[in-house]
Amino acid sequence: MNGGKQTIVFQNKPCVLAGYSIVGPKESMGPLDPYFHKRLRKDDFGQSSYEKAECKLHMSAISGAIIAAGLSPKDIDANIGGDLLNQIITSSFSARELDIPFVGMYSACSTFAQALIVGATLIDGGYIRRAACSTSSHFSTAERQYRYPLELGTQMTPTSQWTVTGAGCTVLGKYGEGSKIYLESATIGKVIDFGISDANNMGAAMAPAAAQTVIQHLEDTGRSVDYYDNIVTGDLGIYGSRLFLELLESEGIHASAKHKDCGEMIYDKKQRCPQGGSGAGCSSVVFNSYFLHQMRSGSIKRMLLIPTGALLSKLSSLQGETIPGIANAVSFCVEE
Amino acid sequence: MNGGKQTIVFQNKPCVLAGYSIVGPKESMGPLDPYFHKRLRKDDFGQSSYEKAECKLHMSAISGAIIAAGLSPKDIDANIGGDLLNQIITSSFSARELDIPFVGMYSACSTFAQALIVGATLIDGGYIRRAACSTSSHFSTAERQYRYPLELGTQMTPTSQWTVTGAGCTVLGKYGEGSKIYLESATIGKVIDFGISDANNMGAAMAPAAAQTVIQHLEDTGRSVDYYDNIVTGDLGIYGSRLFLELLESEGIHASAKHKDCGEMIYDKKQRCPQGGSGAGCSSVVFNSYFLHQMRSGSIKRMLLIPTGALLSKLSSLQGETIPGIANAVSFCVEE
Repeated sequence: MNGGKQTIVFQNKPCVLAGYSIVGPKESMGPLDPYFHKRLRKDDFGQSSYEKAECKLHMSAISGAIIAAGLSPKDIDANIGGDLLNQIITSSFSARELDIPFVGMYSACSTFAQALIVGATLIDGGYIRRAACSTSSHFSTAERQYRYPLELGTQMTPTSQWTVTGAGCTVLGKYGEGSKIYLESATIGKVIDFGISDANNMGAAMAPAAAQTVIQHLEDTGRSVDYYDNIVTGDLGIYGSRLFLELLESEGIHASAKHKDCGEMIYDKKQRCPQGGSGAGCSSVVFNSYFLHQMRSGSIKRMLLIPTGALLSKLSSLQGETIPGIANAVSFCVEE
Repeated sequence: MNGGKQTIVFQNKPCVLAGYSIVGPKESMGPLDPYFHKRLRKDDFGQSSYEKAECKLHMSAISGAIIAAGLSPKDIDANIGGDLLNQIITSSFSARELDIPFVGMYSACSTFAQALIVGATLIDGGYIRRAACSTSSHFSTAERQYRYPLELGTQMTPTSQWTVTGAGCTVLGKYGEGSKIYLESATIGKVIDFGISDANNMGAAMAPAAAQTVIQHLEDTGRSVDYYDNIVTGDLGIYGSRLFLELLESEGIHASAKHKDCGEMIYDKKQRCPQGGSGAGCSSVVFNSYFLHQMRSGSIKRMLLIPTGALLSKLSSLQGETIPGIANAVSFCVEE
């Protein structure tokens, strides 16, 4: 990376050895259901609290991905993960059960990209052999932490997104371990603030960061959007996606034919989520199910994944702070 | 890193270009005062909230370190940082002002080590040129987030530690940029839980993780404690340090002559902090002031820094969870 650039290029093709996704009942009623690896019948996962349920989801995703890669926990050198709960207790408590060195991340709903970037760098540079990159979110833990008690039955505003109940994990390894899907480059995002202060309008807060990261990625790599089969944002939602595309359009970048948004994809219109899904689990469950499948089946050869995060806390909103956004991009290629 | 090992070795001597520490009034009345770069007269730093004050502290540490390195923000490829506040708003909001790509970390009071590890890996592997690794904490934001409203004037228990008001930042760069202090290796910690559930006894919760990481580091590198001039833990406090040394002793490792704890060092006994300091800022202000000075002056040639973290949230404690700990180790050497 040279002055002004934000993109790092991996030299040794760190590979996706396996992915795993586990989702709640609402997500399994959406259009991506056939791609998920496991679905919960009840979103408490048999636990006494939603926080414990999210922790079990997170652990299940990690274990599932490790098993899917034909490995055992001792083969994994680092679990790099995060979630939306205060002090990322979901990921930390999940790592407690796993006996794998743990690197805790927080970049809101962009955490999955950050975990992939750090994992791929550690492998690409020859420091570790394999990493399990995991994120999760849970509607009921996020709702009561960030907004209101669930018992209030608060109505959603038209710009609201529904926090995905789910966890995803990708096991990364060295080139030559049998996978043809590799991470080619990554663009580390800057924190961008357009002055949005409505905590029910995350799409608007994150769209400028997503646009900045994509523009920078294309500039750093000298590519146009045509290079990719898909440009996939994490959870901008319907309104945020429109803003994102308009911001790119204003820079002369026409991405609408290539663009998909994990948040828009995960729910059906009939499911009454005004803008689609969000949450640190959103991009990771959709990537580890649908997109990994598309890359394995050859439908997608190159994709840019851009999970997006809104950087706020309940306190920062109450103190009148605006909501800055961040977006990290990871480019995947399938070897012919 | 091979199966079972947790230590990565840097190949290209990523260097400490500069460090900067800024502390609150209480810290500047302690024994390390001569080493700090900047002291606040009032802990609100002229801001309307303690959260804003912590954010300004964090930014000041980053700017201070960049200036001390003779650089400007455009020379820094990544700010890797974290803090103790929910959703690490201090670091995120600080990154918003800086126009530097941001990687958000959370590993409680062990975050500083994690930031150094990721920063050094990115530089050592040739992905970026320079990183600013920063952490902060503030007594008044932590106290009211984790414990009780400040207005209650709650008494401390005998095992309590005082959260350090301060921020530290280390600018890392490539070998050959004029610094003789380099990062030699790092051990990524596992999450260890000995079943401590008293949120006022963090030392006991973190000591087992610190001991595990040090034992693993020595085993992985084939070293004894004699290799290091100092073995420096982050914020175990007086009681936690004793436990840590006893745990090492039980494995035949005699470290007491080499051991220092940043939390024990930062306050004077007269300052009425029963066990010493703690917080994500504790190890970073002490490292970036006292220990960098000792390495520059030649008093320390090799040191192992082990910031330690207690992984809990207010909610996890209320839900009756125990407190797992984590510790990451970074070894520094001074080139002759």
